[in-house]
Amino acid sequence: MSPNPIPVHTWFTRLWAEIAPIGRDPGTGGYLRYGFAEPVRELERWFQRVAEADGAHTVEPDGNGNLVAWYGPPPERGDAVLLGSHFDSVPHGGGYDGPLGIVSALLAVRALRAEGREFRRPVGVVAFAEEEGSRFGVPCLGSRLLTGALDPERAAALTDRQGVSLAEAMGGRPAGARPELLGRIGAFVELHVEQGRALVDLGAPVGVASGIWPHGRWRLDFAGEANHAGTTRMADRHDPMLTYAFTVLAANKEARLRGAHATIGRVEVEPNATNAIPARVRGWLDARAADTGTLEALVEGVRAKAADRATRDGTTLEVTRESLSPLVEFDGGLVKAFRQVLAEGVPVLPTAAGHDAGILAEHVPTAMLFVRNPTGVSHSPAEAAGDDDCAEGVRRLADLLAQLAAG
Amino acid sequence: MSPNPIPVHTWFTRLWAEIAPIGRDPGTGGYLRYGFAEPVRELERWFQRVAEADGAHTVEPDGNGNLVAWYGPPPERGDAVLLGSHFDSVPHGGGYDGPLGIVSALLAVRALRAEGREFRRPVGVVAFAEEEGSRFGVPCLGSRLLTGALDPERAAALTDRQGVSLAEAMGGRPAGARPELLGRIGAFVELHVEQGRALVDLGAPVGVASGIWPHGRWRLDFAGEANHAGTTRMADRHDPMLTYAFTVLAANKEARLRGAHATIGRVEVEPNATNAIPARVRGWLDARAADTGTLEALVEGVRAKAADRATRDGTTLEVTRESLSPLVEFDGGLVKAFRQVLAEGVPVLPTAAGHDAGILAEHVPTAMLFVRNPTGVSHSPAEAAGDDDCAEGVRRLADLLAQLAAG
Repeated sequence: MSPNPIPVHTWFTRLWAEIAPIGRDPGTGGYLRYGFAEPVRELERWFQRVAEADGAHTVEPDGNGNLVAWYGPPPERGDAVLLGSHFDSVPHGGGYDGPLGIVSALLAVRALRAEGREFRRPVGVVAFAEEEGSRFGVPCLGSRLLTGALDPERAAALTDRQGVSLAEAMGGRPAGARPELLGRIGAFVELHVEQGRALVDLGAPVGVASGIWPHGRWRLDFAGEANHAGTTRMADRHDPMLTYAFTVLAANKEARLRGAHATIGRVEVEPNATNAIPARVRGWLDARAADTGTLEALVEGVRAKAADRATRDGTTLEVTRESLSPLVEFDGGLVKAFRQVLAEGVPVLPTAAGHDAGILAEHVPTAMLFVRNPTGVSHSPAEAAGDDDCAEGVRRLADLLAQLAAG
Repeated sequence: MSPNPIPVHTWFTRLWAEIAPIGRDPGTGGYLRYGFAEPVRELERWFQRVAEADGAHTVEPDGNGNLVAWYGPPPERGDAVLLGSHFDSVPHGGGYDGPLGIVSALLAVRALRAEGREFRRPVGVVAFAEEEGSRFGVPCLGSRLLTGALDPERAAALTDRQGVSLAEAMGGRPAGARPELLGRIGAFVELHVEQGRALVDLGAPVGVASGIWPHGRWRLDFAGEANHAGTTRMADRHDPMLTYAFTVLAANKEARLRGAHATIGRVEVEPNATNAIPARVRGWLDARAADTGTLEALVEGVRAKAADRATRDGTTLEVTRESLSPLVEFDGGLVKAFRQVLAEGVPVLPTAAGHDAGILAEHVPTAMLFVRNPTGVSHSPAEAAGDDDCAEGVRRLADLLAQLAAG
């Protein structure tokens, strides 16, 4: 990248230490960073300060909760290079999922500017809003709004678990699709901590994403008859918790049989009292597979087994698809450019995780770079990335940015 | 009871209409009456007004959240007759479980007074606190404190789901055991809506309880490893939701095999996010059986199956007994007195539900009277009792009170 050593490692550990305490729960060590709320707001203010100190000429909200810092020539034409990720976390998640991509983007820009390189294309760093969907239930909320994949009226009415609407949390209706903003972007690159063990197994600090598995969320509403847990004969029960439990096990089995992934990790029960047979149990199925046919067969397999069990339990089941993200194949040109600037033999791998990059990919050439995670664990306080690997990620991202945008 | 018709039916429907709206959720039609909080406080103020208007000479709190209205001679000797039940509900429970016993007690006293009968023994009507344990997790909280079955220091530190302690909710530490108050009581009778279908099957409006099945609550803590639902290979998971689900089904099967009752109707998940494999799942097992040996074998059977599955899932399980109520056999003399004053062939039946009567039974002669529930459903808005049956319950309770205490 440069004959003079740029202190990327030092920059990284400093910036990382600044944001590490923000929104961290002292009990679990995990993060409680929900979209449109204070710990994320604080991170956004920090983002603005860092970007401005590094020479961003504007840091502007897009009306959908996303924030973009612009460097270099004004982004007028359709050739801007955008880097970035998101600040929000799953409840008690790790600190790398999202923020690593934003910090790496800020530092890739800083590294090129420290070398005195001029940007010949506009360069932006974006902080997307509510990627995890942990507060309002829709993952990639900010990028979906920006691209028009989510209707702003529908989004405005979404409510969090305290009944606060998105419109209330944002202080107004989201702007919705911004085609003129999207039209300025010629490439989007998201760096992300790896959420599995592939790079560990391969012994590589970074890798390039080939695409994203199709995946989605289905809400499973099981209804039965609330009754007294002590006095109701077993034979007289219509207990939706039984149907739910059977479905949890069925989803696991169906996914294993198909080489796919299925998880039921969220449940809500009414009345959720020790001495009451529930009236209602609501679970959410997260399902992912390498191709659309397998994903459809998986969800249908779970649905059919659950419906059969509901008949036996005297309960009912309603399945509602809450989101579905089709197969994403990242831009061939960008992936090729990545492989050219990276060392020989850089791994190229698919991922089963949704990302804002997957949403953007339908509109602009998009690619992703992964940084090795020694635990292979994500969405948990055990999520990790070594400082050396993170610095390597910044350098590789800067290399790509230099090839794409620097003179 | 009386040659002159006493308008018990009219009295009942009037009092019932007064309390029906208090704490009712307009959405489900169920009740949200938690101990030591406003809807129950309003019911307690109502109780005091009615009792005083009906001639109670004192209405006194016992320092444990229980409230007693005293009629007749001052309760000095150990011969008082106490009637009553509780005001609190399970979340979204029915309106009869508890309040029917208090309203019936108030009206049984009123009926005898309307007939001009003098009480030759002191007569009290009690409203016990937090019988369901829905707020602080300990069922029969008020009667356990009164009898010394629950240590007041331990109780003071109990917290509700918002982190409010019982001491905070009560405005001070509970008084704990009141042997001098218990020593005044020669008999306790609790009327209660039936929580099953036995009286429906028998075609009887009221029945007498023979005893209460031994029963208890066990907390099941399943721990695994939080991880990303999308990217974690099925084989790499340590998902405690799977162990929980298996245990829900195992508890059902073990109970059916033994003619016992087992329910897991309450669950808490961390982080409870759609796209995260949980770190922890906590369930509560409610188990009941006709005898202690069967109950122990049931709980051990569930524990062993759950532990075996935890080994396969790579998760852990910890079982904590939160409460255990031994077999209760109601007082033979009182049951006999009931059968004498009631019509021929009155059914005598056991119950699997815990009641304050079960706690009192260890200290004073105790009995229970059940009123038919046409749905057989309890702890649900579907819980019901016909006005005619409720009025019949009041008359039979008044008959027993007359035999025990009226001149």
